[in-house]
Amino acid sequence: MSQFTHFDDAGASRMVDVGAKPVTRRQARASGLVRMAPATLRAICDRETAKGDVREVARLAGIMAAKRTGDLIPLCHPLALDSVRLELTPRGDDGLQIEATVEITAKTGVEMEALTAVSVAALTVYDMCKSMDRGMTIERIQLESKSGGASGDFARSAEALQKSE
Amino acid sequence: MSQFTHFDDAGASRMVDVGAKPVTRRQARASGLVRMAPATLRAICDRETAKGDVREVARLAGIMAAKRTGDLIPLCHPLALDSVRLELTPRGDDGLQIEATVEITAKTGVEMEALTAVSVAALTVYDMCKSMDRGMTIERIQLESKSGGASGDFARSAEALQKSE
Amino acid sequence: MSQFTHFDDAGASRMVDVGAKPVTRRQARASGLVRMAPATLRAICDRETAKGDVREVARLAGIMAAKRTGDLIPLCHPLALDSVRLELTPRGDDGLQIEATVEITAKTGVEMEALTAVSVAALTVYDMCKSMDRGMTIERIQLESKSGGASGDFARSAEALQKSE
Amino acid sequence: MSQFTHFDDAGASRMVDVGAKPVTRRQARASGLVRMAPATLRAICDRETAKGDVREVARLAGIMAAKRTGDLIPLCHPLALDSVRLELTPRGDDGLQIEATVEITAKTGVEMEALTAVSVAALTVYDMCKSMDRGMTIERIQLESKSGGASGDFARSAEALQKSE
Amino acid sequence: MSQFTHFDDAGASRMVDVGAKPVTRRQARASGLVRMAPATLRAICDRETAKGDVREVARLAGIMAAKRTGDLIPLCHPLALDSVRLELTPRGDDGLQIEATVEITAKTGVEMEALTAVSVAALTVYDMCKSMDRGMTIERIQLESKSGGASGDFARSAEALQKSE
Amino acid sequence: MSQFTHFDDAGASRMVDVGAKPVTRRQARASGLVRMAPATLRAICDRETAKGDVREVARLAGIMAAKRTGDLIPLCHPLALDSVRLELTPRGDDGLQIEATVEITAKTGVEMEALTAVSVAALTVYDMCKSMDRGMTIERIQLESKSGGASGDFARSAEALQKSE
Repeated sequence: MSQFTHFDDAGASRMVDVGAKPVTRRQARASGLVRMAPATLRAICDRETAKGDVREVARLAGIMAAKRTGDLIPLCHPLALDSVRLELTPRGDDGLQIEATVEITAKTGVEMEALTAVSVAALTVYDMCKSMDRGMTIERIQLESKSGGASGDFARSAEALQKSE
Repeated sequence: MSQFTHFDDAGASRMVDVGAKPVTRRQARASGLVRMAPATLRAICDRETAKGDVREVARLAGIMAAKRTGDLIPLCHPLALDSVRLELTPRGDDGLQIEATVEITAKTGVEMEALTAVSVAALTVYDMCKSMDRGMTIERIQLESKSGGASGDFARSAEALQKSE
Repeated sequence: MSQFTHFDDAGASRMVDVGAKPVTRRQARASGLVRMAPATLRAICDRETAKGDVREVARLAGIMAAKRTGDLIPLCHPLALDSVRLELTPRGDDGLQIEATVEITAKTGVEMEALTAVSVAALTVYDMCKSMDRGMTIERIQLESKSGGASGDFARSAEALQKSE
Repeated sequence: MSQFTHFDDAGASRMVDVGAKPVTRRQARASGLVRMAPATLRAICDRETAKGDVREVARLAGIMAAKRTGDLIPLCHPLALDSVRLELTPRGDDGLQIEATVEITAKTGVEMEALTAVSVAALTVYDMCKSMDRGMTIERIQLESKSGGASGDFARSAEALQKSE
Repeated sequence: MSQFTHFDDAGASRMVDVGAKPVTRRQARASGLVRMAPATLRAICDRETAKGDVREVARLAGIMAAKRTGDLIPLCHPLALDSVRLELTPRGDDGLQIEATVEITAKTGVEMEALTAVSVAALTVYDMCKSMDRGMTIERIQLESKSGGASGDFARSAEALQKSE
Repeated sequence: MSQFTHFDDAGASRMVDVGAKPVTRRQARASGLVRMAPATLRAICDRETAKGDVREVARLAGIMAAKRTGDLIPLCHPLALDSVRLELTPRGDDGLQIEATVEITAKTGVEMEALTAVSVAALTVYDMCKSMDRGMTIERIQLESKSGGASGDFARSAEALQKSE
């Protein structure tokens, strides 16, 4: 039997059948980090109180991307999301932490939606700041937790977090 | 004057005017790494010779996403790309390195297209393998080089690479 | 507490959580008016019995746009609509009245879908006729009624209509 | 011969051939007005200095919609825009004026892109404020000026403005 | 009364109201055939065991297109599909048979999704092979069966199949 | 060397580089046939003079799909089309012939755009008529001619046509 649920036994891609799964309330939380020059981070944070809010642009891009996950990821189910929230928080003097929380009442989970929201928000931060800092990197995009599905809950353990530092 | 080209002096978002820029041949190269359990990487590499090719699915998702960058990143120009290529290469026993190269003959560059291709390919690897390894992380998505534009060429320096290790 | 449901207390955009709302049958009706030269309106109406039907093109554009509302309006939920209908009716000698009715069985309403359908239908009328009449204006796009949701029904009152004349 | 360039002589819709038209720099400017309760306008303007910026969300939605005009309006050409800018300015105590300026170097103009940007920005204002003011109306969406094309320049005259009051 | 459910009595297009229909499990199966030079078919089948898999690219394109049926077919309802599967099988020495199976739990059926999946998979086969065989044709795209809806089940009869040979 | 231009020598999908190709005026023409019960064809043709025009809906769907070809076919280049035209003509008592002509001034051809326009128009005819005739088939979608590119012109020969009858 195939280990990859998205391939059948002959190795052909498929969108797996979720028809028999129960409709439950599900949540997923994902995070990522944009690392940048301290001056870039200061410019993002300063401007917010003054003129132009990089974080709000990134947040909107992430929310809109979450809604289009099924269009971007070939074998994802198209889903009618209940809610999407993103937070962008400075971390140290050179990091902008992005966290997305997505909820749905459906037969399948929203990990990919949360991860897509984080990724596109991070890309948007890059786009907004690239004229001053092309060396920015997007780091450690990962699932933080997921709940509500048949495959059981998931929470990234403390060890896992330490290891990935 | 604003440091952020995507904001005007009042802090309002805008798509910057590229009308006066010359049409030149431009290239951008970006990379990223999906870190996973060694067993997951082996399953990806084994299956390729047998049944189901995770890397081909991710490559196609990345190519298609590159074409839709202007739809995803709020202030990106919509662009008619000349070419998109992605490579996914095992790195060590727990990493899958993704590299995208995008080319265009246009007034503006394709960094965002290359970074978007890498990001969506990485998300697709996650989606294809998540049933066996939810702890995968997407790391160090970054611009490797860019050439052909008025703002000068860019190449991630050896130091930069060391620092980001 | 925030007056704007689409912002949290810190002013960050979010897609509000509709997970706890009941699934009910909901309807929204919106309208708008394209004002044009009398000759343009006559051309639209004459052609319909002869060659080329501006109203049918606009109707289809409005229906297709209603389905994509969640793609266009940043914080709208993506929704699986039950039905969309548009009517385009001459009004006086220089107006084309557009009315859209959208229905759904869901946790959230379809005002935005009805307003989007009207707007895109009106834009399409403009596009089809602009070679003969660039001075056309799109006027008074408004919600006419909505029913079925927890926030109560809405019907534009007679006074409101008089005032907006 | 057909008056409607988008229909052929048999009345069939078509995307008109712009292949023989010269590539020129073109600009279009469009405007519209969202009329609302004075309290709603105050909330929009107050919040901007505090928490949550309705105008920035609307601006981004308008810019993104301009890029997708060819997807929304059935017979519009898909275009690679040079720039898109939107301004949202209070007018009196109950109006929010929206103006969009779009530029391109191409064989065909960008009136529809400017009008689409205004329309979707106005719809987004409605969406952001509808929980406090369902009676808002979107008024007088119109082309203000256009230049650079073979069909000649257009500027809405003072008379036209008076007439449309 | 109109024979065409997608037109009202005045001949106007509409998205028909499915609000009162019961939610049931539904399935549709469609097929089509790409006819090509025997050398092209051999190249497709040979490459699969070696380098590059035309069928996998076509399968993914078909799955992704099924998800976007409501965006492509003007009066189709947008639907949250449960599953999509495609098979591409050589038939004789010059045919590649494509079959798509789509399932949903909803108020309306998925015939159009299955037919769209087959069509876009066939177009993708054409695109992948056109540099060596421009004369390929796409033949006999048809619904094979449908079940689960109020309008009754459908199965293409043996006679119908003979007649269409 | 790979026979398939869309695969590299290792069998990986790619969007081929058209950067060095000359910009020329290019045209492609494709066709297809929807076969149906004679009563269905009569209903389509009768209604056109009366109420509801299946052919116009299909034509618009085909034009809109041509613009989105790069979104649907994984390795197609996104293109700014100059023109798209579709004709739907009764053929015998049970066939509706669809022909699409697409033109562009670009580095790459528009065969896929013409074939996609025909396919989606045919699917739309099916959708509009399926409530009265589920047995309809879409037949012989093929490239009729192409001109203007470096790979030479193509015209389906008389023999080819006879053979495909």
